[in-house]
Order: sequence, then C-alpha cells, then structure tokens
Amino acid sequence: MRSRREYPEHPLVGVGGLIHKDGKILLIRRKFEPNKGRWTPPGGLLEVGEDPQEAAQREVREELGLEVEVEGLLHVANEVIKDDEGRVKFHFVLVDYLMRPLGEKVTLNEESDEFAWFEPSAIEGLNSTANTKLIARKYVEAMARRERP
Amino acid sequence: MRSRREYPEHPLVGVGGLIHKDGKILLIRRKFEPNKGRWTPPGGLLEVGEDPQEAAQREVREELGLEVEVEGLLHVANEVIKDDEGRVKFHFVLVDYLMRPLGEKVTLNEESDEFAWFEPSAIEGLNSTANTKLIARKYVEAMARRERP
Repeated sequence: MRSRREYPEHPLVGVGGLIHKDGKILLIRRKFEPNKGRWTPPGGLLEVGEDPQEAAQREVREELGLEVEVEGLLHVANEVIKDDEGRVKFHFVLVDYLMRPLGEKVTLNEESDEFAWFEPSAIEGLNSTANTKLIARKYVEAMARRERP
Repeated sequence: MRSRREYPEHPLVGVGGLIHKDGKILLIRRKFEPNKGRWTPPGGLLEVGEDPQEAAQREVREELGLEVEVEGLLHVANEVIKDDEGRVKFHFVLVDYLMRPLGEKVTLNEESDEFAWFEPSAIEGLNSTANTKLIARKYVEAMARRERP
C-alpha cells in the first residue's frame, strides 16, 4: 500500500513536540513508516488551514493523550528519505516546538508501541533518527541559554 | 488562471530570507499573488528533495541576483489566505532565515518591481503583510539578543 505521503509533489509539513520535564525529554517508538521502529518526538502532518503550533498540540493530544503548553519554536529540520533508485520517497519539513506537559498520564494511540523519558545524552545509543538526535542537541543548547544570567 | 499553489491538498513550504545590513532589512514589492503589490522578504517554494536553507539562498539568488550567507533560522510563520466563501485558497508555512549579503548589487527578476532597504520600524507604515511585520519584530528581538553581553 502506497500512502499519500510517499513520492510527494511538494514537501509536506510535519509538526512535532519536544516535551520536556526535569531535564528529560519524551520520545515514542513509531509503529509505522517512515522511521518505523525508531524513537522520535510525537508529531504528524499539518493540515490545510491549521496553525502549526496548534497542530503540534493536537498531535500530542492524539498520540499521547496529553495536554501541553508550547514554550516556543525549537527547530526546523529537513527529512528526506530516498528509495533504492535515489528518488525522493519522503520529504518532510519538520517544525518542532518545545513543550511542557500539563498532566502526568500518557496514553498511547495506535501509532506507537512505547514511550519513555530520556536524558538528552542517552539518545545517542538509541535506534533513533538523525533529526531526533539533532533536536536533542538543540534542546540542550536551549536549556543552556535559559540558565545564562 | 488558477496556479497549482491555490487550494492546496497540503500546506506548502515557503522559504525566505531576511537580508540585513547595518540594521536595515531588504524587502521587495511583489508583482504576483499571493500578496501582489505588497512588500515582503524575497522567497519562494521549497522543492522536493531540497534543503530549506539552500532553497532560501536559491530564491534570493534568483530574485535579487545576490549571494548571501545564512546566519540562522529567524522565524516560522503560518500564512493562510481564504477566499470569499471562507475556503483556504493559499496555505504556506513560511520558514525565514536571517541572512547577510555577500555582494552589493541587486538585480530584480520578473517577480518584483521594487526593492528597498528599510529600518525595521519603518515597515509599520508600508503596504506589507502581517507576517512581514512579525518577522521585522523578530529581527529587532534577535539583534537585541546579540547585543546582550
């Protein structure tokens, strides 16, 4: 089955949330392509007419059953995945927001089979994506800026 | 004539460059819809497989004949324009980078009929877009952060 996300005519906008608490960040393990089986922040496609920040909050609500407060834009990443012939199979521009959870309880939907809170440094050893590792580094930088007097 | 940008199935990614020099920013006056006749930063559509930052440099090169150095991500904005029936006619997610010009000479292409360097505060009085005004404010904030010890 070929999803409408494959071989797009234009890059698609993905929105996501890096949810953090006490210096740890929340990742989920994806059940579907792209990046099936890998740890990433929760997120999904921006829909026509929707605001990216509100869409990121909607995705977190759907995937984790969690309400969040958006603290700001964290990073914009480019995710291009090519097929064996070198054609672009997936192209997402990923807009990730830094978020604070407003509740405790996480309830996963069908898109992921695990979630966990990680120290940013722990992500290097995970089966994650290059962009997730980059976002974790951006998070560490953002926290360091906050602590500056 | 209806362009392929109208009534999109998904939001489209626009990339742009806020080029600055000596505290002034470069805007162009657009000859085409959306925002025909208004002052905005140069920019255009991200293409499949392309990196957003490189695409923004390409758009500046095409529209202004200018080489630039990208200093960083400045802002992500949502641009939704509805028709008279309230349907979404245009939806762009605009990723704007802060840029420094590497040359002096500007040569406009067919997409715009004027360019000018403005003080950020001068934009309030221009026929510009809400997002351009927002980007100008983000620029002022970014410059203030730079000057902090």
